[in-house]
Amino acid sequence: MTAYDDLMAHQRQTEALAQIAGRLSWDRETVMPRGAAAQRSEEAGALSEVLHARRTDPRIGDWLEAASGEALDQAGEAQLRHIRRSYERTQRVPCDLAARIAKFTALSQGRWAEAREADDFAAFAPVLAEVVALRREEGAALADGGDIYDAMLDDYEPGAKAVDLEAMFGALRPGLIALREAALGAAAAPVVSGQFDVQTQMRLARQLAKVCGYDMTRGRIDKAVHPFSSGSGDDVRITTRTSDDEPFNCIYSTMHEAGHAIYEQSIDPAYALTPLGAGVSMGVHESQSRIVENQLGRSRAFTGWLYGQLRDAFGDFGIDGPDAFYAAANSLHRGYIRTEADEVQYNLHILMRFDLERALVSGDLAPGDLEEAWNARFLRDFGYAVPRASQGCLQDVHWSVGLFGYFPTYSLGNVYAGCLAEALRQAVPTLDDQLADGDMSAAMAWLRENVQQHGGLYTPRELITRACGAEPSEAPLMNYLEQKFGALYPAG
Amino acid sequence: MTAYDDLMAHQRQTEALAQIAGRLSWDRETVMPRGAAAQRSEEAGALSEVLHARRTDPRIGDWLEAASGEALDQAGEAQLRHIRRSYERTQRVPCDLAARIAKFTALSQGRWAEAREADDFAAFAPVLAEVVALRREEGAALADGGDIYDAMLDDYEPGAKAVDLEAMFGALRPGLIALREAALGAAAAPVVSGQFDVQTQMRLARQLAKVCGYDMTRGRIDKAVHPFSSGSGDDVRITTRTSDDEPFNCIYSTMHEAGHAIYEQSIDPAYALTPLGAGVSMGVHESQSRIVENQLGRSRAFTGWLYGQLRDAFGDFGIDGPDAFYAAANSLHRGYIRTEADEVQYNLHILMRFDLERALVSGDLAPGDLEEAWNARFLRDFGYAVPRASQGCLQDVHWSVGLFGYFPTYSLGNVYAGCLAEALRQAVPTLDDQLADGDMSAAMAWLRENVQQHGGLYTPRELITRACGAEPSEAPLMNYLEQKFGALYPAG
Repeated sequence: MTAYDDLMAHQRQTEALAQIAGRLSWDRETVMPRGAAAQRSEEAGALSEVLHARRTDPRIGDWLEAASGEALDQAGEAQLRHIRRSYERTQRVPCDLAARIAKFTALSQGRWAEAREADDFAAFAPVLAEVVALRREEGAALADGGDIYDAMLDDYEPGAKAVDLEAMFGALRPGLIALREAALGAAAAPVVSGQFDVQTQMRLARQLAKVCGYDMTRGRIDKAVHPFSSGSGDDVRITTRTSDDEPFNCIYSTMHEAGHAIYEQSIDPAYALTPLGAGVSMGVHESQSRIVENQLGRSRAFTGWLYGQLRDAFGDFGIDGPDAFYAAANSLHRGYIRTEADEVQYNLHILMRFDLERALVSGDLAPGDLEEAWNARFLRDFGYAVPRASQGCLQDVHWSVGLFGYFPTYSLGNVYAGCLAEALRQAVPTLDDQLADGDMSAAMAWLRENVQQHGGLYTPRELITRACGAEPSEAPLMNYLEQKFGALYPAG
Repeated sequence: MTAYDDLMAHQRQTEALAQIAGRLSWDRETVMPRGAAAQRSEEAGALSEVLHARRTDPRIGDWLEAASGEALDQAGEAQLRHIRRSYERTQRVPCDLAARIAKFTALSQGRWAEAREADDFAAFAPVLAEVVALRREEGAALADGGDIYDAMLDDYEPGAKAVDLEAMFGALRPGLIALREAALGAAAAPVVSGQFDVQTQMRLARQLAKVCGYDMTRGRIDKAVHPFSSGSGDDVRITTRTSDDEPFNCIYSTMHEAGHAIYEQSIDPAYALTPLGAGVSMGVHESQSRIVENQLGRSRAFTGWLYGQLRDAFGDFGIDGPDAFYAAANSLHRGYIRTEADEVQYNLHILMRFDLERALVSGDLAPGDLEEAWNARFLRDFGYAVPRASQGCLQDVHWSVGLFGYFPTYSLGNVYAGCLAEALRQAVPTLDDQLADGDMSAAMAWLRENVQQHGGLYTPRELITRACGAEPSEAPLMNYLEQKFGALYPAG
């Protein structure tokens, strides 16, 4: 056994235990009896301690040092890179600080939920101040003299820099605002009407997931309040949700989560239960969910096929023909909530959070002033005013537990999806003909080949650059949005 | 922190992790995608290693020694007794032997399944020989000079001795055989006919579990191939099964598993996630499932109420009135399979396995001669011949992985249930009136008060003696069976 072998054996068990932790979360959100919450929290805490001890095991440092002299292949070097990065991060944060953060964030989420319920930002402000202070302390330890926000970002998108995101997002913003203005000034899109049987929606969800390439023998679909995908390798489960009065929530939640899940299912099995055996970053993960949901799933070609499926399943639902259905599936309208936003306004939500959270972290924005800053920015970018805190700065859970650096990966994912969709259309010229038949197989094969199979082998930026033949840029996303929504909502 | 506190903190985390392992098994049997089996096996193996390391942690020995001088209350002393017992057992078995057993039994179950499928005992005989040899070696290590079979038994029923069981079972056998002979010589019981909608059966299962006192806010019911109960404290789940053409499988599987689950749910919450926080032994556990299933659930009074529920749910199903229904729910007929056997013949199955496995362990019976010995004994006790090995000595999984000492706890559970039912009827004189209304609350309150709440506080024998006011004996069970089946199948 070489040091590398020892290290990987240790790591493999850690990854296996981490999969169990993921399964417990799935269980909690889908099947757990409601009276089990407190006991579960203790159980999950015990597993979490085991994982922490394994991840900070000082032998990892010794193995890493010894293994650095060994001759390894590309995958081996990439494994070491991931393990070294994680281990160094755990080494930089003092145990005492990590414990204080864990303790505070265990409670702060509840305080946020109460404040949101009461629409009372003032009640949440001191909690936010403490979370910001703790995370800044952690960020400073992680940054080791470098940029604090970049150090936070690195947790979700390894190697990403705020200055690059700022340039990308800055270039997107005027175009997004122009599209939003044009759309909200134009005639409203057609809307579906009627009742949509839940069982039928769930049957359709299973069918759609399979059409996308989701392997149901290595996964399953259940309902949950907030849709999510969970697990890696041969056990990747998704959840979705349904509304009684419209089918899009279920359809696009399912396709989005299927996109995430298919990514995990498509990684080279040789990487299973290793650091390379999971999606490489939040941004790349989001690109896989978004391209399935939006560039493919909300395309004119695919919605044409989907319309036929829905007519078969539900009969008449007030939409007259595939063009109207396409418009309904891509409608832009007023709304305050990020998770319900369309392709255009979603990014406006993220750009705003990116700027606000950087200001919180740098100290330019006092936590107590967040609501005012939020509302002013929202009015500028969206053109209508936030009515209450629960529909404004209290809507997302992220900041309540100090997840700074997480939000921008959503829009970065959309940017990556834009790049990949452009490359995909060049590689598969007959894509629309296939989508019009409800056939995603060529598209998914291309994504598997060029992105998904590689797991964590390349850095996120390398991966997208290799797949697209060019460095990632916001231009393809902007072109796509302008073409699509420019046609749906023509100016004047 | 005293040594006792340190020990209990360690133990509590171990118990929490053990609950997770139980949840993983539940997941595997109910919701796991079938393609996930190999990965799951690795995940469960990793958790198993963590548990093993925690349970053999040498600090436990130090804490136990230091804590033995501390002043503790009754519960504290009982905790130490449980922890000491488990730790000493792990210390006695050499690591190398434990590893050889784990390795062999990981494969032997598959070999058994193949042999059963092929009805080929000869193919399984050498596997059995090796399992017996390994378990004897382990038993000798555990027994430390004492009786090897008793050391095995102690794993499932702490403190039980084969010589006592032999006396109990020996006293039962002639009476059981006489009841079996009378029943099989008499007219057959009425049988149900018709189709029983699965959804309706599952609705009924939920209703029945609640009637028994199962708390659905701290549990759930799903379908599984083999019904089981899983978990302790606030997350105790059960599974059941259904047959299309008769309702008894679902009804009594549900009530049996609800009995197990209610025991776990009823233990004093102060013992949660400690050694006292689970059912005290296999035998006592089985007594709680059996009394709910049989002495209560198959009583004339309760089946009278149940008949009305089934008529409401399914309409006419070929049974004319509650007396016929009672007879149908308690029918004795030929059969070869333990898990499908009635209250009388079930114990004949166990008595036979108890004698055969002791002979295997002592060396009096060569593993290669098991089939012949089984078939001869079966013919003697049951009065009809075993047609093939899959319906004979290959029917149960237990011996394939060397679970010797496990079978007798099933009949011991029936014996305990007999004692408890007798005491219960004295404590609740109006029991039948309540059962006739579908009301089990007084019965379950008595069981909770006298048995269930105590968890592992007393030894199994102490617990039953305290509850019943007398040492356990087979006489109440035999009286109950003779009264019940003597009336259902009168001699001549």
